[in-house]
Amino acid sequence: MPIFWPLLPLPDTICPPLSTSISPVKRLSIPAPLRRYLPILDWGSQYSRDDLTGDGVAAVIVTIMLIPQSLAYALLAGLPPEMGLYASILPLIAYAVFGTSRVLAVGPVAIISLMTATAVGQMALSGTTEYAAAAIVLAFMSGLILLLMGVLRLGFLANFLSHPVIAGFMAGAIILIATSQIKHLFGIKASGSDLITLGGALIRNIAQTNPITVAISAASVGFLIWARKGLKPLLDRTGLPARLVTILSKTGPLVIVAATTFAVWVLQLDQHGVSIVGKLPRGIPPLTVPVFDAEIWGQLAVSAILISIIGFVESVSVGQTLAARRRQRIIPDQELIGLGAANVASAISGGYPVTGGFSRSVVNFDSGARTPAAGGMTAIGILLAALFLTPALYYLPKAALSSIIIVAVLSLLDLSMLRKTWAYSKTDFLAVAVTLLATLGFGVKIGVTAGVLLSLALFLYKTSRPHVAEVGRVPGTEHFRNILRHTVETTPQILTIRIDESLYFANARFLEDYILDRVTGDKDLRHVVLMCPAVNEIDTSALESIEAINHRLHSLGLKLHLSEVKGPVMDRLKRTDLLEELTGQVFLSQHQAIDALSG
Amino acid sequence: MPIFWPLLPLPDTICPPLSTSISPVKRLSIPAPLRRYLPILDWGSQYSRDDLTGDGVAAVIVTIMLIPQSLAYALLAGLPPEMGLYASILPLIAYAVFGTSRVLAVGPVAIISLMTATAVGQMALSGTTEYAAAAIVLAFMSGLILLLMGVLRLGFLANFLSHPVIAGFMAGAIILIATSQIKHLFGIKASGSDLITLGGALIRNIAQTNPITVAISAASVGFLIWARKGLKPLLDRTGLPARLVTILSKTGPLVIVAATTFAVWVLQLDQHGVSIVGKLPRGIPPLTVPVFDAEIWGQLAVSAILISIIGFVESVSVGQTLAARRRQRIIPDQELIGLGAANVASAISGGYPVTGGFSRSVVNFDSGARTPAAGGMTAIGILLAALFLTPALYYLPKAALSSIIIVAVLSLLDLSMLRKTWAYSKTDFLAVAVTLLATLGFGVKIGVTAGVLLSLALFLYKTSRPHVAEVGRVPGTEHFRNILRHTVETTPQILTIRIDESLYFANARFLEDYILDRVTGDKDLRHVVLMCPAVNEIDTSALESIEAINHRLHSLGLKLHLSEVKGPVMDRLKRTDLLEELTGQVFLSQHQAIDALSG
Repeated sequence: MPIFWPLLPLPDTICPPLSTSISPVKRLSIPAPLRRYLPILDWGSQYSRDDLTGDGVAAVIVTIMLIPQSLAYALLAGLPPEMGLYASILPLIAYAVFGTSRVLAVGPVAIISLMTATAVGQMALSGTTEYAAAAIVLAFMSGLILLLMGVLRLGFLANFLSHPVIAGFMAGAIILIATSQIKHLFGIKASGSDLITLGGALIRNIAQTNPITVAISAASVGFLIWARKGLKPLLDRTGLPARLVTILSKTGPLVIVAATTFAVWVLQLDQHGVSIVGKLPRGIPPLTVPVFDAEIWGQLAVSAILISIIGFVESVSVGQTLAARRRQRIIPDQELIGLGAANVASAISGGYPVTGGFSRSVVNFDSGARTPAAGGMTAIGILLAALFLTPALYYLPKAALSSIIIVAVLSLLDLSMLRKTWAYSKTDFLAVAVTLLATLGFGVKIGVTAGVLLSLALFLYKTSRPHVAEVGRVPGTEHFRNILRHTVETTPQILTIRIDESLYFANARFLEDYILDRVTGDKDLRHVVLMCPAVNEIDTSALESIEAINHRLHSLGLKLHLSEVKGPVMDRLKRTDLLEELTGQVFLSQHQAIDALSG
Repeated sequence: MPIFWPLLPLPDTICPPLSTSISPVKRLSIPAPLRRYLPILDWGSQYSRDDLTGDGVAAVIVTIMLIPQSLAYALLAGLPPEMGLYASILPLIAYAVFGTSRVLAVGPVAIISLMTATAVGQMALSGTTEYAAAAIVLAFMSGLILLLMGVLRLGFLANFLSHPVIAGFMAGAIILIATSQIKHLFGIKASGSDLITLGGALIRNIAQTNPITVAISAASVGFLIWARKGLKPLLDRTGLPARLVTILSKTGPLVIVAATTFAVWVLQLDQHGVSIVGKLPRGIPPLTVPVFDAEIWGQLAVSAILISIIGFVESVSVGQTLAARRRQRIIPDQELIGLGAANVASAISGGYPVTGGFSRSVVNFDSGARTPAAGGMTAIGILLAALFLTPALYYLPKAALSSIIIVAVLSLLDLSMLRKTWAYSKTDFLAVAVTLLATLGFGVKIGVTAGVLLSLALFLYKTSRPHVAEVGRVPGTEHFRNILRHTVETTPQILTIRIDESLYFANARFLEDYILDRVTGDKDLRHVVLMCPAVNEIDTSALESIEAINHRLHSLGLKLHLSEVKGPVMDRLKRTDLLEELTGQVFLSQHQAIDALSG
């Protein structure tokens, strides 16, 4: 039964978050601003024994994944391995306090590690104190930028990274990451932040390949690929408890770390050219103070902005996908605060830029994490590793870490966007392809910048040449359709033009030219009707163009009419002289216009 | 009587140019590409005695205006006065050959002269050979950029300068120009490319004011202001022939040049601190070769691009306005060639950047110019001045030239856009105000750049937060309107959302959030209909968002339907999996959707 909906504001009920458990209505004792900025007050006050079990198991599994990954990604970033561990302790606790995703696993991730290497690599040599200090500054700046964006609610800026640009950038970055690790697999030297430089260096130095290193790499990569698919079925058959199987099935990288370290130690392979991690400091993360140097900050500014936005986009898209599966929601502007706090925490505890990682978050989710407390427990796990495990990692070969990186990132490589956009939209295909090629050819910074600028330019170009159709009436109806697509009725003295775009400065002159070209030489014509159902805005430039069209049509003896102007557009036009100066009328519907003008 | 218009391509007759005289159909002997690139072949082959009379009179009047203006604008650009004359000879001939406007008067103009001073002033000191050489390079680069844009048909790029930005920039530049000339009026020193620097320098040096210079300035400005309005009525009363009156009425600036030069010479005022033009070289323009130096070209590149685009916009808007009055049209892409040729011609003949000027073009038009030959004849007039008049200009006081500049530019100052946009659109007002203030505060280069970037950013921001309305049926009709603006019928189990914007990457997530927020907690809801009459495009990002919405609504037990999808959008959606995966249907009209879903 239809009901009447009177002229009323939208009821309050339309905007609650999807998750009822984080609804702020229930616990009025906590002031609203505190609840907004400290989501921990929400979930923490309801923490249950079940939550503890779920979070605990997930934390064990994620810790097992994170120990080798954090060491490997630090290597990818060109930093000492312990900085990967440090970046996996305090940042996780900070995110647990400030973040809104229940299951996001924060810490070092591949793409941000690569971007860190690119940014810091311009300023100092990998392995120097300056290099590590710059990475800490980068984390600090990135944290401040994210916090600022969160407070100013600038999360929408991330929307300007289109899906094609993200896909092209991710694919390019993954290929760059894999290529950058080949040197460790072969035990040779090679550096560069783009595919050509890197590839060239690899080819030049391939003769220095260390056969033992290659053997370690081949065994590691082979085992890791097998372990991703084959380990769990094998464990299932052992009859062990399901929870233990889940934990053990994620131990592939940890097994590789242990096995290769042991092999190098026993066989003294480090004396046969196998590059090892070496001495790691043992203990809690150090308290670090970021360097305040205007020149360094200036040089890192653009990179810090890009790292912040890319990290945010990666984190939010994982967080949203996982939240939706449990009918929860995340709050993007508060996520900025959570990630900002995590990065500041990283900077003051000897870490480097972090964000929410895709694969670890999925594992955290699948392992049953229920609240951000899982992240806090993971942090304790990593802290224990930093306290007790580091001496055991002396003989860990870099080739093993590189194998872990390569297998992890290549599983994320997804080129399907190329095919999808090729079929659907050639301009979007162009955006994917250019972003991918620019990332490969010129590195991550230029790649993502080129992608964003190109996609904006393509959008602006398209809107500057709007679709304009001459329409006629579908016989026997009140519908008007494109004369080129449908069999329709028209009247010789009336020209109706439907504009399929908002009118603004970039397409105002296009419309002027189109109409004046069209009317010239049409002897029967008396009326021009602009049909505006798709015109969502008319800016000042377009208003002046319509005034000019009105004026010129008048001097040609033609009247200009408007039809189907939207409410908000009409409200604004009423504040101008256009409606007085208009030689014709404004019709509510195109049907009325044709009736009145052909009568 | 209505006629049926079958499915046919647009007939050829709809796109002839408005002017029949430049229609290419008549003279098939000239090949089309030649006619496109050499408009002179069109009008030249039909040149008549009447054309000659009209062009001749206009040329005399424009020459009389141009001699003082060209000297004055060279002074404004910080260049030797003769470069103003040189920029008014060969460029006019080049434009006459390649340009499409019948009446555009090309040559030095105020704003481009100011932009030249700003660009070149960063590199060398005014008065040095390097400064003049850089101005020549700037003209050459600007010429090449314009030619390239013409060949690649990039004229549409100028559309990205919105009317508010142009208005704000012009007003700011005019105020800067007038302020920059105050020093000459007072006979003091002051430099700077923004209002604050300039104003500060003027205030610091005001004590050095030369009283005789001030007297010359006051008399000049007073006479020029009077002459603009009062000279013609006075001459009309003398009974002289009308054509002679028209010519004489434009002699105000020339009278000032002659009278002040004579006064300085007779009274030896140059020995009392009055700054004079001094020795000018006599003869035809020199052949100059632009310096080819990568560093200089690099430093001037951005300025050359801005000068090209601003010059093109100024020129085309004057040309189009005047062409429309005689039912002629100009071809913007060929105008780029015409202006490009003019600038290259200027660079090889000792000139500096030129474009079509507003006031001289209007005078040319009003004086009866009928073809670009008027420009060619003006060039001969200026050549004669360069040959014979230059020695007489030795004692010309700079204060007289500055008076001419100030009176000329202030008559063009138009701040009405501030009021107009304030009433109509606050975002456009912001664009005018920021462009104006940035131009005044930071100079022309930053001013126009800030304006363009801000107007694009505001447009993108607006489209990233589209207008979305929940709609219901207007009782007794097939029309659907916003439930907040109209009394309409809705059905509890159906939610219809109309999106008033194309869907693209920047607003895709907004739509996702809007719909998921809206449906949560609505227990009766079974169907969500997206009504798309104003959706002119769905890009890949938005397609993925709709897929995500479909997926999430499905998991909430809701069906997603589409209605009133446009033809071109539907064609593309058919190439994707969306229509198969869609839980609901696609309805041609919203009316059909409601009928089917509430039945």
